[in-house]
Amino acid sequence: MSGRIANPKLQGLIMSADEAAAKINPGDQIGFSGFTGAGYPKEFPQALARRIKEAHDRGEEFKVNVMTGASTAPELDGALAEVNGINWRMPYQSDPTLRKRINAGDTYYSDIHLSHSGMLLDQGFFGATDVAVVEAVRIKEDGAIIPSSSVGNSTNYLRNANKIIIEVNSWQSEDLEGMHDIWSYGQLPNRQPIPIADPGDRIGTPYIDIDVDKVIAVIETDAADRNSPFKPIDDDSKKIANYLLDFLDGEIKAGRLTKELLPMQSGVGNIPNAVLAGLLEGPYHHITSYTEVIQDGMIDLMDQGTMTVASATAFSLSPEYAHRVNENAAEYAKKIVLRPQEISNHPEVIRRLGVIACNGMIEADIYGNVNSTHVTGSKMMNGIGGSGDFTRNAFVSCFVSPSRAKGGDISAIVPMVSHVDHNEHDVDVIITEQGLADLRGLAPRQRSRKIIENCAYPDYREPLLEYVERAEKNASGLHTPHDLHEAFNFHTRFMETGSMMPEK
Amino acid sequence: MSGRIANPKLQGLIMSADEAAAKINPGDQIGFSGFTGAGYPKEFPQALARRIKEAHDRGEEFKVNVMTGASTAPELDGALAEVNGINWRMPYQSDPTLRKRINAGDTYYSDIHLSHSGMLLDQGFFGATDVAVVEAVRIKEDGAIIPSSSVGNSTNYLRNANKIIIEVNSWQSEDLEGMHDIWSYGQLPNRQPIPIADPGDRIGTPYIDIDVDKVIAVIETDAADRNSPFKPIDDDSKKIANYLLDFLDGEIKAGRLTKELLPMQSGVGNIPNAVLAGLLEGPYHHITSYTEVIQDGMIDLMDQGTMTVASATAFSLSPEYAHRVNENAAEYAKKIVLRPQEISNHPEVIRRLGVIACNGMIEADIYGNVNSTHVTGSKMMNGIGGSGDFTRNAFVSCFVSPSRAKGGDISAIVPMVSHVDHNEHDVDVIITEQGLADLRGLAPRQRSRKIIENCAYPDYREPLLEYVERAEKNASGLHTPHDLHEAFNFHTRFMETGSMMPEK
Repeated sequence: MSGRIANPKLQGLIMSADEAAAKINPGDQIGFSGFTGAGYPKEFPQALARRIKEAHDRGEEFKVNVMTGASTAPELDGALAEVNGINWRMPYQSDPTLRKRINAGDTYYSDIHLSHSGMLLDQGFFGATDVAVVEAVRIKEDGAIIPSSSVGNSTNYLRNANKIIIEVNSWQSEDLEGMHDIWSYGQLPNRQPIPIADPGDRIGTPYIDIDVDKVIAVIETDAADRNSPFKPIDDDSKKIANYLLDFLDGEIKAGRLTKELLPMQSGVGNIPNAVLAGLLEGPYHHITSYTEVIQDGMIDLMDQGTMTVASATAFSLSPEYAHRVNENAAEYAKKIVLRPQEISNHPEVIRRLGVIACNGMIEADIYGNVNSTHVTGSKMMNGIGGSGDFTRNAFVSCFVSPSRAKGGDISAIVPMVSHVDHNEHDVDVIITEQGLADLRGLAPRQRSRKIIENCAYPDYREPLLEYVERAEKNASGLHTPHDLHEAFNFHTRFMETGSMMPEK
Repeated sequence: MSGRIANPKLQGLIMSADEAAAKINPGDQIGFSGFTGAGYPKEFPQALARRIKEAHDRGEEFKVNVMTGASTAPELDGALAEVNGINWRMPYQSDPTLRKRINAGDTYYSDIHLSHSGMLLDQGFFGATDVAVVEAVRIKEDGAIIPSSSVGNSTNYLRNANKIIIEVNSWQSEDLEGMHDIWSYGQLPNRQPIPIADPGDRIGTPYIDIDVDKVIAVIETDAADRNSPFKPIDDDSKKIANYLLDFLDGEIKAGRLTKELLPMQSGVGNIPNAVLAGLLEGPYHHITSYTEVIQDGMIDLMDQGTMTVASATAFSLSPEYAHRVNENAAEYAKKIVLRPQEISNHPEVIRRLGVIACNGMIEADIYGNVNSTHVTGSKMMNGIGGSGDFTRNAFVSCFVSPSRAKGGDISAIVPMVSHVDHNEHDVDVIITEQGLADLRGLAPRQRSRKIIENCAYPDYREPLLEYVERAEKNASGLHTPHDLHEAFNFHTRFMETGSMMPEK
């Protein structure tokens, strides 16, 4: 026994992951901790996958509904998808095996705004939660748990579930205690204002209270999060980051921002990392972050003293940086607040603070609609995640992508996006390595040429302009001129010829 | 002089609308009061239109940028559009003449969430506001103004404008004083929580403070708002209303609502009016409304005692009801709060209160995306208005429409909407006179047949099902199966043959 389980009753419920998995019924709806590969249970889902496989091998049906914070890891989504064990999944995923299941029609997937998922659960819209399975750093004497490297939807699952399973992971530093800020705005009709006026404000407790009588198993683990090394920053990412930083400098010059900026939000990946690296070199000071995940670049900014505080719901670090944070968790807990995702991503706070939002995309169209989720209209990539929470409510909303993919066969700028996740009402700025299109205050017809000229890869500008001209000639109205016969010709050409580029 | 202008300095600035209009320069950006045909200036815009026409007759260029709360009336949008006097317009309109200008390419139109418009102005994203032109019930001794039948974006325009023109309209009852609640959440980086926990909470002042030195003209008017009689409730509207009321009853039975419901929001028109009439007959009590506009049916509910309080930013009444409210304004001021639209429509409050949202639509697709604004993808109808503010943040979001239009040539359910204003992430319930599709917790593939079977007009079900089956066979993935060659075949068929129905 690791000594991390202070509650006597829960000490008595320590068992193996296989014993715990034996308590799950086919059809159960399970809420897991875990967000961007941090703080998810490691042993239980694999044991459950083994159990499901055995049932399938015996010819029995066995699938469960899987709810999480966001993406998890091969040990959770991967293992359960591998055995075709997931009937329905929400609210975000990025696992290659699960993605295949979703697109093959084996798994139903509800792609839900991250800030909405827990709220809709609380409202009873998804039915009963049978089991909550949550990773913890330790269990206090009264049974309250200290979450590990993410909070996600754990408070909602623990509150609503009929049964609780806890994985106590001794790989996670005990010094993470104090970093979390657990607070609930209450239930309807008595929801309360969220009293956060600064990203660093702590309004709750560092632990999650649970009903100890609901706990049916405690599992001891010692396993690292899925921390993947960041790739070195490539040229395109650096160019995109520079356009964004230039834009921010322009806003400072125009008096709309100061060198303290406003709280930064960004998605995960190479481009956001390049932006963070750029902030490291810039003239900024006392900057803050109100975002979903703590990334490597933010640790650097904090170490340098440029970033004073960051609010998120999870870590998403490289192994090297995860080690650094784990070793110095008590120190970082002074500058990092991990909140439930319904607070980290809540429209109320995002809008109040005036967040600068920067999110990736699959494609944007010439009128400023953005597709974050679907390839050629039908195929799910990952999900909308928190991009909608931030984009809709930000001070300014930026979307970034290289202008091309697949060696040039795919253009990130298309006549009409094949799926709309963020529409023209919410998208302010589009950036590729070619340049930046500032769409603020522009009508659709003023946006098209600007987006094409500033953001599209040069080879694609002519076919895009041809589309605009044809659409302006044939459209039923000149507000958002489209030719509905041809609006998806980039996509259908790609599906037929392997390239969006017209043949010469 | 009407006796409604208590400030001596402003008394000295009383002049005719034509004299005031002479103070406007070509290219000026003007912020007008006015929301759903209530509380807009009546004389000044017509005088400005005359001035623009004279300039055009002399061969001079003269256009202005027009910002409002929402839709206005023939005297404002209509008059200025008639003379082709509007270069750029935001954030919502519904005037037939202006609509033609927008779709002919004469006027640029930025269709913006109503709660965002004032905020983006404050953030400096639209550049300088040259003039604010605002209707008032009266001017206090210190120059503060009592707004009339709407608040809209007036506080933002008055705060930001370099010059101010006030129309004091003696048609509006002086007893409206006390109905308004003017409050600002402050400017970045110091925006404050909005302390509203109940639709009736008053948090501000009943007047708008202004900088008297900015006033360049005061115009006295005596003219009614654009109040149009409601049509009698037709059969389809009654059926749709009944499906919604049945749904609410189901939520009560399931324990997700009580007979007090949650604050109601609805768009304007025949169907919402039928819903309000249905509430009048139902088992509900102590219901409230947190919405944009006060409609006839809400006055009935208040008179009956079923609705205790309503929060909005404007009235939208029939002439008979407008008269009733004007005669008894002091009494209604106890039950009605008129707020700035950035508060009436603010995500923070809507989400906190858990509003039941019900909005009209042009079309929905088989996966639950909704088009509220565009006909055949290109042509602007009115605008998104506040539907996005409420839909995204509601307890539950419903969209309503008859299943057909133009005598059956148009189906409100289509394979893919030609413009997306509200996407699958935000739409919970779709209702037509055919039935109701409850989409909560469903993956896209689970939605398509349900929407078709429950909501589409019977004649259109077969072609829609054919599309689904073809898409499920040919799509690149089964998450949201689409055939991008055929996704707009309903729309293109309509444009070519005059009907979305395939020829037999």
